[in-house]
Amino acid sequence: MSTSPAHRIVIVGGGFAGLNAARALRKAAVQITLIDRRNFHLFQPLLYQVATGMLSPANIAAPLRWLVERQANCEVLLGEVTGIDVEHRAISFNGAQIEYDTLIVAAGARHSYFGHPEWERYAPGLKTIEDATEIRRRILIAFELAEREPDLERRRTLLTFVIVGGGPTGVEMAGAMAEIARFSIRHEFRHIDPSDAQILLIEAGPRVLLAYPPDLSAKAQQSLERLGVTVRTNAMVAGVGADHVTIDWGGVREELPTQNVVWAAGVEASPLARILAGSTGAEIDRAGRIHVTQDLTLPGHPEIFVLGDMASYQHQTGKPLPGVAPVAIQQGRFAARLIASRLRGRGLPKFRYRDYGNMATIGRSAAVADFGKLRFSGFFAWMLWLVVHLMNLVSFRNRLLVLVQWGWNYFTYDRSARLITGPSAPADRSRDPPARADLTKTAAE
Amino acid sequence: MSTSPAHRIVIVGGGFAGLNAARALRKAAVQITLIDRRNFHLFQPLLYQVATGMLSPANIAAPLRWLVERQANCEVLLGEVTGIDVEHRAISFNGAQIEYDTLIVAAGARHSYFGHPEWERYAPGLKTIEDATEIRRRILIAFELAEREPDLERRRTLLTFVIVGGGPTGVEMAGAMAEIARFSIRHEFRHIDPSDAQILLIEAGPRVLLAYPPDLSAKAQQSLERLGVTVRTNAMVAGVGADHVTIDWGGVREELPTQNVVWAAGVEASPLARILAGSTGAEIDRAGRIHVTQDLTLPGHPEIFVLGDMASYQHQTGKPLPGVAPVAIQQGRFAARLIASRLRGRGLPKFRYRDYGNMATIGRSAAVADFGKLRFSGFFAWMLWLVVHLMNLVSFRNRLLVLVQWGWNYFTYDRSARLITGPSAPADRSRDPPARADLTKTAAE
Repeated sequence: MSTSPAHRIVIVGGGFAGLNAARALRKAAVQITLIDRRNFHLFQPLLYQVATGMLSPANIAAPLRWLVERQANCEVLLGEVTGIDVEHRAISFNGAQIEYDTLIVAAGARHSYFGHPEWERYAPGLKTIEDATEIRRRILIAFELAEREPDLERRRTLLTFVIVGGGPTGVEMAGAMAEIARFSIRHEFRHIDPSDAQILLIEAGPRVLLAYPPDLSAKAQQSLERLGVTVRTNAMVAGVGADHVTIDWGGVREELPTQNVVWAAGVEASPLARILAGSTGAEIDRAGRIHVTQDLTLPGHPEIFVLGDMASYQHQTGKPLPGVAPVAIQQGRFAARLIASRLRGRGLPKFRYRDYGNMATIGRSAAVADFGKLRFSGFFAWMLWLVVHLMNLVSFRNRLLVLVQWGWNYFTYDRSARLITGPSAPADRSRDPPARADLTKTAAE
Repeated sequence: MSTSPAHRIVIVGGGFAGLNAARALRKAAVQITLIDRRNFHLFQPLLYQVATGMLSPANIAAPLRWLVERQANCEVLLGEVTGIDVEHRAISFNGAQIEYDTLIVAAGARHSYFGHPEWERYAPGLKTIEDATEIRRRILIAFELAEREPDLERRRTLLTFVIVGGGPTGVEMAGAMAEIARFSIRHEFRHIDPSDAQILLIEAGPRVLLAYPPDLSAKAQQSLERLGVTVRTNAMVAGVGADHVTIDWGGVREELPTQNVVWAAGVEASPLARILAGSTGAEIDRAGRIHVTQDLTLPGHPEIFVLGDMASYQHQTGKPLPGVAPVAIQQGRFAARLIASRLRGRGLPKFRYRDYGNMATIGRSAAVADFGKLRFSGFFAWMLWLVVHLMNLVSFRNRLLVLVQWGWNYFTYDRSARLITGPSAPADRSRDPPARADLTKTAAE
């Protein structure tokens, strides 16, 4: 054993990339500081199930401290990294400086509104637990308001749900929402028929799930339409307001009355990317991601890794890798292996992403799965989706609970986790008319 | 069958009293409108388990619409009742009037600070889901801040938890908190030992669980002390501030440095009680509860029932019935039976509360149970507590999930539902110093 001080690694972000890097270093003679704003690791691919009342937040989140509890070389700090001093190899955290020998920046992405940040209050995205419970609240309140709305036109506006973006998140949200309206709450109202709800999925490209082969896109669209979702492709969103969405169909504009818009269209990297680029001269792409070298570090800074949704890595294909969990996981593990290898005075060949395939689910018993040569759709794909996602939920306890919950929901169409909670909409999103405001009071009556 | 319009019943509040009244009327030829501010029925006795990260909110809440989905004579409205016009038999709801033939007011209670509302921001109570997640957030953040606090004295302040009130809620909270610190998160920190946390239970009376026989109070106190809780009886709270609690020991004042106070000391009835008393001349007691007649109605207004925590009902003993779930449930069912009986032109003898006993749990394997002649404590009482509470959880699905969760937690001391969520403390409670504020940002990094 060497008596020199241990190699200090600071990891910013406890998502798929950061957490997997930390865990893969559990046997290394290093000293890890894992920093996150939140005290939990979030299984983002299932966030839409929280937003649609299927799962509870705790089902898809596991406390970071608990995840690395037995890993003596790793400490967790809760808070925000405000600056990075590349020259002195230190980050600014909570008014202090924390020095590193190697820095891993994996702070993820948030949704982006293509230069229209003012749309956010009307069209929340789906990246955090709070986003999910806020969307859940809005969906449920829309039905509540419709139930007591005598005016037919206003009722239709309340029951029109628009999902912007036909990627996996948008497709999964649309399918889940159609199921809520058509099955879960169908018989719970007296003045409206929830299955009258109109659910629209808007995609700017020529088909949904653009990253999939065309035949699976078509299957996905069919499954959605069978659930009653209206899919509109080649449709750009030109405006979002308190009570409408403006859609641009190749020059023709249409204004759609709705109060319920969910944004699943675009993401942009954490602002830390710009801070880092500013001090290292690294390049940034349109989505705010940093162009990394073939070993996922910054040009000229082999001690700084940028991983996951913050990194733009040109794969063989020339296209940057997508912002999905498998990419982040593999990058986290690669960074850990490279660090361990360097400590032994060696290196590693460049990072290569192994694409095991993509899956998206549509409602409670359909899905599409693309494993290159093998493609599935329908019930079998859905079962595959279930098994893969269940296996990947981080803690065993969550797996067990989620299995019980999914099993129960499957046979009953039950969605019991549909609580309208929270004191009120966060101020910057609140666009609630007075009629809505009194649904959101907190005082315990 | 009569062709006269159905008897209209308005029920204000979907708690134990209101929900049980509605359900017991499912076969009656009546037309029920059940109104609540929230879209769910809450199993309040287990709220402390949400506050301590054992259960998720959805585990102890069931959507009201779902609970009465198949009850065709009942509709649910979400919102706030702002007035009651006793003369015209109508309530004000969302700017409209809703007429009733019989009114059931069961809007519950909220915590009361004995004339010191300014204490609330420093000492939240435990009545709603938001209260529970707020307390959970505060407890978890205290440990996080302590972990990075170099100053020993400030660290001790951060790790001092004070629970005010030695009734069942206070005792259960104290036991659960001791377990978090001593078992659940014990090995998750690197700079502090969470089991150093000081947990104080303060009770103004001579013993905890005053409603129980003295020997069970003693057993409860022993169980708490075994878990490391310091119990202080005959101690009044004279002040609560941002970083201290002032305790009055029979004239001697002591200032205790702490940033974590939970209020479990007193409740007061919903403000609807005063509105109702104002227009009917009914009397109100010190806790804001309405004195009801022997059939739970208002004097001179047999068409208005007041139930549960809002009602002061003089039992045989001369003492008003306690604000517990069994009282509310029995009162709800009595009101329903009386209404059905009146519709058949008959009446019922006065309401009598059947006391089946009381139970409180202390940590994960001790409890006290008082069934009059039969008294239990320790593990057997805990098993009883478990069975009774599980059986009473409203929906079957919640029972199954809670059983899985409890079973898992029992063997592992795991408390996975400990998420620090929410954009920040509600403005009226926020007393966070800057060091705390950056833990609570929302932006998705």
